[in-house]
Amino acid sequence: MDIHTLTRELQLDNGSKIVMLVADGLGGLPMSPGGLTELETAKTPNLDALAALGVQGASIPVKPGIAPGSGPGHLGLFGYDPLHYQIGRGALEATGIGFELKEGDVAIRCNFCTIDAAGKITDRRAGRISSEESAPLAISLRQIKIPGVEIFVEPVKEHRFVVVFREPGLGGNVADTDPQKTGVAPLDPVAQNPQSQRTAEIAKEFLAQAKKILAGHPKANFHTMRGFANKPSLPSYKEVYGLRAAAIAVYPMYKGLARLVGMDIVGQAQTLQEQIDVLKQNWDKYDFFFIHFKYTDSTGEDGNFAEKVARIEELDSIMPQINALKPEVMIVTGDHSTPSYLKSHSWHPVPTLLVSDCCRPDPHKAFNESTSITGGLGHFEAQYLMALALSNAGRMGKYGA
Amino acid sequence: MDIHTLTRELQLDNGSKIVMLVADGLGGLPMSPGGLTELETAKTPNLDALAALGVQGASIPVKPGIAPGSGPGHLGLFGYDPLHYQIGRGALEATGIGFELKEGDVAIRCNFCTIDAAGKITDRRAGRISSEESAPLAISLRQIKIPGVEIFVEPVKEHRFVVVFREPGLGGNVADTDPQKTGVAPLDPVAQNPQSQRTAEIAKEFLAQAKKILAGHPKANFHTMRGFANKPSLPSYKEVYGLRAAAIAVYPMYKGLARLVGMDIVGQAQTLQEQIDVLKQNWDKYDFFFIHFKYTDSTGEDGNFAEKVARIEELDSIMPQINALKPEVMIVTGDHSTPSYLKSHSWHPVPTLLVSDCCRPDPHKAFNESTSITGGLGHFEAQYLMALALSNAGRMGKYGA
Repeated sequence: MDIHTLTRELQLDNGSKIVMLVADGLGGLPMSPGGLTELETAKTPNLDALAALGVQGASIPVKPGIAPGSGPGHLGLFGYDPLHYQIGRGALEATGIGFELKEGDVAIRCNFCTIDAAGKITDRRAGRISSEESAPLAISLRQIKIPGVEIFVEPVKEHRFVVVFREPGLGGNVADTDPQKTGVAPLDPVAQNPQSQRTAEIAKEFLAQAKKILAGHPKANFHTMRGFANKPSLPSYKEVYGLRAAAIAVYPMYKGLARLVGMDIVGQAQTLQEQIDVLKQNWDKYDFFFIHFKYTDSTGEDGNFAEKVARIEELDSIMPQINALKPEVMIVTGDHSTPSYLKSHSWHPVPTLLVSDCCRPDPHKAFNESTSITGGLGHFEAQYLMALALSNAGRMGKYGA
Repeated sequence: MDIHTLTRELQLDNGSKIVMLVADGLGGLPMSPGGLTELETAKTPNLDALAALGVQGASIPVKPGIAPGSGPGHLGLFGYDPLHYQIGRGALEATGIGFELKEGDVAIRCNFCTIDAAGKITDRRAGRISSEESAPLAISLRQIKIPGVEIFVEPVKEHRFVVVFREPGLGGNVADTDPQKTGVAPLDPVAQNPQSQRTAEIAKEFLAQAKKILAGHPKANFHTMRGFANKPSLPSYKEVYGLRAAAIAVYPMYKGLARLVGMDIVGQAQTLQEQIDVLKQNWDKYDFFFIHFKYTDSTGEDGNFAEKVARIEELDSIMPQINALKPEVMIVTGDHSTPSYLKSHSWHPVPTLLVSDCCRPDPHKAFNESTSITGGLGHFEAQYLMALALSNAGRMGKYGA
């Protein structure tokens, strides 16, 4: 049974407010044996003060040993079983650039590639063409017309762009055209089920027209299509939790993920302080606030330990402004760990802190990887964090009599 | 896969004995930040001595963040997945007053209500009529006769009573007649599936006769019907664990829940000391003893911190008498937390202690919320406690070769 079966049935509305502050990739590792993690190194007096009041634990994003991408990482935090709800690659790519998918849309990740005179691929990424060079090329594909279908083409980065087909009833189950090797021609788009037959035909026609448009380019003279996907169908925060939810994020990917679960995207913040300002401005309008802080992840991905420490300290410095709003439940967590040592997302549990008047505090007076593993929340799957948040907020009745 | 698939296959009978002492609502909260919980405040030298010998952990009744009622709380402790096995409201109400449901019975929770001359509800609870006034009224409904069906009417409390229809093949899926608001007439009972057609007809006839009988009463001149439910079908302790199980409880609800999993209800104890006496008297006749102690819950529900502390100390004082019987496995736990601070059941994990000669003790020398979160049993779902009990009792073989 899905946890939403319970939250749908048991939800209450008592007007309380929940703030979930997601420091992307929060968890880390020491750079050498015996060392400290980024979070243990950072000076975080405000988080430590919250730790003394609250309860902490180690959040397992998906299952032990599984490192998630941003999609499943956030779905877990939002309480959606990340193994059940899957966002197709094309849909995630479109979401990541802020494209608002509609019901029935099919989104496709496309890669510019180089083909030879015989039509065989010589470079699957068109020599990793620069964004500056590829964006106008992607935009040139907007001239493609196919009767009955609305077509969107959006540049992404380097050799990547997104194509979206919009026509009622289009299926999203079409095989990739990327053969995953050079020396062979791209594959034709082949439908994997009857509902996707029309989609495959549209894709084939799109590719034929694109080939003509791109023909003269020295590197990006064709493209492949991968990850065909319909808009994912996720129940909304309003329905599953009874929450009016707002997302305060800087990057399109996180706005997109929040939009998929029915959150309103509020403000145009570009800095953490601006995000907090947006939070204050919207305080009376929503029950739940998702605040996304990107830089604990990007610094980790860069392997920049010192800068990740600095970003954690930046995050710590704004905590008093959130506390001043007196949310009934305050949560600080991450969607996964991004240790500078690994320069990538990892599977390690994420230190997670929850503060409420009824949270049963544990003895910890600091907040980091070491303390979280012996915290009162134990080691728990991220998908249960929302149920904990709701109960701590007084927003859930009891299950069964 | 259900844990019972394993216990059915792996169970052994070595004559060992298991005692599960359930202090209802055992877990608590501090009344103010930095304070102690009820269990941390209580002087519990005997439990602390057991803690030094045993292993403890934090039992999650259902899932993180879910506060259970008594039904799912106990099913979990008994090893029955509380999300899979659900006890219908009517069946639980009947169970709670000690009514022994039989296969095919349909139990219904009824509320006396007040209707006006037009038949519209003016009070859904008949002015919360007293038990003294309502009991004879409920009993007066025993004169209702419907050919072919055996009918039972039992008073519960205030405006509530239970009706049970007994006739082979009756389905329990009938919609509530309570419209959940005043100013409208009660609904007719409507079958939700074909097997419940006959049940709905019986209910309709019952309501028609009840209306005549109650007509003259100033407050309770009609009643609604809710939570239609068949007797839940639960496999027995004997079958799933190979245990001859006895329940020693004071309150009907817990006797009823134990009966549903095939335990024998032994003794007529009214006090904890009498419960221990019953335990001693039946020691040779059973393998498993469920002892239910109610007052850690009821004092918590009352918000009476000091009295909950006193009740925990009372419980502690009888521990030596149980130890003296030398059970192979001794468990102290609760079906959920009932913090005096919240005056209600809560989602917080329940301190749980297990003592056996092979339990791998943890370093703790006290037993409470703080110690349990770092105990050797970790944070675990209650539904696995019986498997732990059986293995510690030498009653389970290994899984696979």
